[in-house]
Amino acid sequence: MSGNIRQPKTYAQAGVDVEKADRFVHRLKALAVRPEHGQLWSVPSGYAALYPTGPDSAVACTTDGVGTKLLVALALNKFDTVGIDLVAMCANDLICVGATPGCFLDYFATGKVEDHQADEIIKGIIEGCDQAGMILAGGETAEMPDLYHGNHFDLAGFAVGNVSRKALIDGSRVVAGDVIIGVASSGIHSNGLSLARKVLAADSEMYRELLTPTKIYCRPAAAIFERYAGAVKGMAHITGGGWTNIGRINKTVGYEIKNPLPVPAIFDALFEHVGSKSEMYHTFNMGMGLVLVSAAADADKIVETFDQAGFSAAQVGVVSDSFTGIKVDELDIAFSNKT
Amino acid sequence: MSGNIRQPKTYAQAGVDVEKADRFVHRLKALAVRPEHGQLWSVPSGYAALYPTGPDSAVACTTDGVGTKLLVALALNKFDTVGIDLVAMCANDLICVGATPGCFLDYFATGKVEDHQADEIIKGIIEGCDQAGMILAGGETAEMPDLYHGNHFDLAGFAVGNVSRKALIDGSRVVAGDVIIGVASSGIHSNGLSLARKVLAADSEMYRELLTPTKIYCRPAAAIFERYAGAVKGMAHITGGGWTNIGRINKTVGYEIKNPLPVPAIFDALFEHVGSKSEMYHTFNMGMGLVLVSAAADADKIVETFDQAGFSAAQVGVVSDSFTGIKVDELDIAFSNKT
Repeated sequence: MSGNIRQPKTYAQAGVDVEKADRFVHRLKALAVRPEHGQLWSVPSGYAALYPTGPDSAVACTTDGVGTKLLVALALNKFDTVGIDLVAMCANDLICVGATPGCFLDYFATGKVEDHQADEIIKGIIEGCDQAGMILAGGETAEMPDLYHGNHFDLAGFAVGNVSRKALIDGSRVVAGDVIIGVASSGIHSNGLSLARKVLAADSEMYRELLTPTKIYCRPAAAIFERYAGAVKGMAHITGGGWTNIGRINKTVGYEIKNPLPVPAIFDALFEHVGSKSEMYHTFNMGMGLVLVSAAADADKIVETFDQAGFSAAQVGVVSDSFTGIKVDELDIAFSNKT
Repeated sequence: MSGNIRQPKTYAQAGVDVEKADRFVHRLKALAVRPEHGQLWSVPSGYAALYPTGPDSAVACTTDGVGTKLLVALALNKFDTVGIDLVAMCANDLICVGATPGCFLDYFATGKVEDHQADEIIKGIIEGCDQAGMILAGGETAEMPDLYHGNHFDLAGFAVGNVSRKALIDGSRVVAGDVIIGVASSGIHSNGLSLARKVLAADSEMYRELLTPTKIYCRPAAAIFERYAGAVKGMAHITGGGWTNIGRINKTVGYEIKNPLPVPAIFDALFEHVGSKSEMYHTFNMGMGLVLVSAAADADKIVETFDQAGFSAAQVGVVSDSFTGIKVDELDIAFSNKT
């Protein structure tokens, strides 16, 4: 396949114009702003909207989808894991503002409800909710002949969790000298698939690996929130835009990643086709699905809590005040435009 | 077109198997049940999930889409109103449990973000939020080449609102002798489109009318909740399944609709093709987009509040204990399977 010159080498060539989509999002935010937005609690990271329920309490709300990982599921005719990804994409966002995941709603749209496919998808959503400690509280099943062709479908998820003002993580306490903790991903998770599925042969082992479900970090995160209140100063779920998401924690400092987690083989396989290390780190999670920042003194217990819950975590770097941006080895990574 | 024998006469023939979808939803509910579901407040109508935020407070959460009304927008190349429908479908569900709409998140998935189309869609969502008194607090824009073809797209919405235990509307206080109030729809709203758009000629005035945005009943409803606490005993948003939704208020009584609201011309046009009055009432709102139940003494002020807000409301019938089900003229309408 590598001889095919029409094969995409960048996310943009794969048909996803992230900058155009970002411009659209900024335009819509300008249009949408109303005085009532002042009621919402503000968190610069933008991982969730915070709607107050009392003077010191709010619900965090977020929505996301699985993207074209669905097309991998369709190509492999395997539907029991994309529901886990759906919950992961939403629930991992919720914890990044310090919220404890509470309930989940799904939107499942399809041309025709096919019993086996639909049941497998829902089993995945339920499994994801169990992993996240969330209640699957409702949803919408939309049968839309003519909009979705054949057995095509789409999934969107909505997650809600409670957060108190004291528990809110907004990145404002992050300072130089703080420690950056990385938690391992299970592989590509649910981002960069539009590129990945075009550069890997559909009959390859690596292609099948694309379907590995996204890790759900909620239970150890919730345990840390409870046991070590205030220890986590910032958190980033590494999604679309890869490591640029780290900057969403706080954009006034630098993130120096000196000891990155091991990079799973899937990314080596993708790099063979993509060829640019910068494109890789700007697109994929590169083995690190969640990033936390804490004071140096708190890092060990955070790492330990993830490890004891069966995750693989480590101190990967430090916060610096001598530059703003993200550095790994010799590579500079720009901050995400997301807020 | 009426000479075309392949033209669908029922919702099922139009490709939407409501019963199959209902069976799927019941199956998934059985699979999803967990002890933690006991934490949720229970409302039999199922219009929203109620996730507690304190001993006497909860957030109501709901998700919905616009269905194949999107295909009408695509056929007419007019995208500034489906966002209103999206907000309406969610926000009108929220008020049915007594919640005050608070914030809204949208999921917008498309093959390629086209600036004009995307901007028009978002303008509609913002207009809908303004009408509902909701904050557009976030969302997800997913660019998915290969899943959505051409300029096809899908929309899902997610709405959250606060409700106190005292303000909760669960239908339990509904008794024989209570009054049924109907509030006029603006036409077909966002349900039954898979049938309607197949029986109306795409170049007809009636087809263009299908795109009339769904009425958003939130502001007068919120005013009633505030001014006349407890007056509304039950409420039903008339969506998929048409008037069968009325039974979601309380399934132990009968609903006798003696003085229905005027039926808009669009439904006469549809009836010409569908031919069955029963199919019509089981599929469409038939001019009534919202139903409320109150004590007879409270009915006038509820009607008045809607009328003063520019809606058209009237007492349309009474609650009866001599049968269970819904009757309009000679027609019996079964209860919805939805819970």
